Amino acid sequence: MFSLQLKEYDIFVGDHREPLSAFLKAGNYSKIVVLVDANTKRHCLPLVLEGLDFEVFTIEIPAGEQHKTLETCQQVWSEMSQLSLDRHSLLICLGGGVTGDLGGFSAAAFLRGIDFIQIPTTLLSMADSSIGGKVGVDFNFVKNIIGFFQNPRAVFINPVFLKTLPDSEIRSGFAEIFKHALIADAALWSELQSVHDLRQVDWERLLPPSLAVKKRIVEEDPHEKGIRKALNFGHTVGHAVESFSLKTGNPLLHGEAVALGIVCESWLSWKLAGLPELDLHEITAFVRRFYEPYPLRTDDFSQLLALMKKDKKNEQGRINFTLLPEIGAAKIDWYADEKLIGESLEYYIREFQ
Amino acid sequence: MFSLQLKEYDIFVGDHREPLSAFLKAGNYSKIVVLVDANTKRHCLPLVLEGLDFEVFTIEIPAGEQHKTLETCQQVWSEMSQLSLDRHSLLICLGGGVTGDLGGFSAAAFLRGIDFIQIPTTLLSMADSSIGGKVGVDFNFVKNIIGFFQNPRAVFINPVFLKTLPDSEIRSGFAEIFKHALIADAALWSELQSVHDLRQVDWERLLPPSLAVKKRIVEEDPHEKGIRKALNFGHTVGHAVESFSLKTGNPLLHGEAVALGIVCESWLSWKLAGLPELDLHEITAFVRRFYEPYPLRTDDFSQLLALMKKDKKNEQGRINFTLLPEIGAAKIDWYADEKLIGESLEYYIREFQ
Repeated sequence: MFSLQLKEYDIFVGDHREPLSAFLKAGNYSKIVVLVDANTKRHCLPLVLEGLDFEVFTIEIPAGEQHKTLETCQQVWSEMSQLSLDRHSLLICLGGGVTGDLGGFSAAAFLRGIDFIQIPTTLLSMADSSIGGKVGVDFNFVKNIIGFFQNPRAVFINPVFLKTLPDSEIRSGFAEIFKHALIADAALWSELQSVHDLRQVDWERLLPPSLAVKKRIVEEDPHEKGIRKALNFGHTVGHAVESFSLKTGNPLLHGEAVALGIVCESWLSWKLAGLPELDLHEITAFVRRFYEPYPLRTDDFSQLLALMKKDKKNEQGRINFTLLPEIGAAKIDWYADEKLIGESLEYYIREFQ
Repeated sequence: MFSLQLKEYDIFVGDHREPLSAFLKAGNYSKIVVLVDANTKRHCLPLVLEGLDFEVFTIEIPAGEQHKTLETCQQVWSEMSQLSLDRHSLLICLGGGVTGDLGGFSAAAFLRGIDFIQIPTTLLSMADSSIGGKVGVDFNFVKNIIGFFQNPRAVFINPVFLKTLPDSEIRSGFAEIFKHALIADAALWSELQSVHDLRQVDWERLLPPSLAVKKRIVEEDPHEKGIRKALNFGHTVGHAVESFSLKTGNPLLHGEAVALGIVCESWLSWKLAGLPELDLHEITAFVRRFYEPYPLRTDDFSQLLALMKKDKKNEQGRINFTLLPEIGAAKIDWYADEKLIGESLEYYIREFQ
């Protein structure tokens, strides 16, 4: 069991049973509700309820990003009302990013805020969305446009839940982990070089240093005014490719698209920010080790650029990047013109096809 | 011009034009949007735009509490998206409680929070809802059940907007003002004794001490864990009577119902908390001076008690009150049984019919 103390709450990594019981006992909640989807209800809820000495209610939402909407929130709020939750009640979000983001938002807005905790069940939500207090939903097909910053009371990360996940989900979460190494922890990056099979990784050992990077950055800049943008490395291109891939019927998971974005933005880092060429090649080879090539074509570039222009972090229409001057360090607020971004995509095509 | 400095923002009382211009200039906003309803668009917007040297967009929502819903928020968010608001944009809420609460909520949840300011145009919102950071909407016919605490960047209170308000709206807001005096400012209560005609009041002089009471209380307890419940004086009975009156087709405005509640809860204060009998009579006479009798009947008591049991502040089913040990002081967390609450309603009937 490893625990990471943040300013407002703790993250527990390892077997959740003891710390969860202790947390619930100390909280003395009037009612406890677990938010699940069909998958986590079946695969994860039994492990959470096992040996738990509390009466627990469940609310089930439909699985999938397409349900991360205000309509689903309204379903959750209706059921919360029917269960007569009061301000001393607790919501446990048991699932991936959708359950965590939507559940956190629903709890934070019910009766002006009831307590919630996160039990992430995907590697992506363990590595990424369990820290940082971002909660919210999609609206009018724009991701996370409705939401706010509200921290959970605690996060329980138990890698046992990863056993039932498909490989693609593990790959997706892994991208955020090695991104954290690239932007702020060169030692972790070195350690990751010894990883060859994602099914053999000891996550209980690898997650804590990765979480520590994100903790450091979000506590320095909780509302994303500055340095928190460092976490955006790989995401300017990554988000665009993710959206693009959804439309083409060959969808990439978030982290898979970010891995592609990391290759392109490492190339931009080499071109603009002084990243040594050897490091660029090391990063490229590392991504190739775990991720299938994605069939990008030069014809797609204009669509990708149009998507990049919609990024929340842009100012005055210029496309904003976080780049690496070296492995283990990030600098925010770089801008690249369309020609250079196109060349970075060409680099990806060359290296991966 | 009077200005009240709160921890996170300032409240300006008086002509808004100069401080508003200065605020907008300092904010350097990428876009400015005013949220209005049909009434404030017609009666108040011209006064806000007058002499303002900024491009301003408007979003219009339907007037009335029945539109303080998530559906209206979705309309606002759609228009915000269409206007391409970014994180450096500002929403100006121009109106009463509905516009302020719903606008504040919409701004606080858009892109995880954009700045908003309040320009209240009713006496109730000037006196009450412009301080305290409560924003939100109704859901499934429960008032303010969805929302959170988020302060505006500034509040501009210009009593000129009161000129177009009907008398009932002035009476409604006035209840919160004398409530503030009763719970925490005996000197203000004395001063209020000289008020006889609500159309002749110098609000620029009376609002600041009333606002100062609320400021002191909400800054001590922003999230309503304790002393903030003092503001609830008159509201346990008041909310129940308000809801009841809506169903009977003889609706009371919020403050009108609170004035009735203040009479009943002053009686309970005399009975339980040591309020001198003379003070009870002074309060009763004061309410009678401004408010029409409401035709309560003994037969309605069971419905009223059922409504009181739903109050958010109750614990373990007991009906929670704030009571006055003397004029100018409040004590929270009193409980009264149904018989005594019934007697307090009988006192109202006796005195007002």
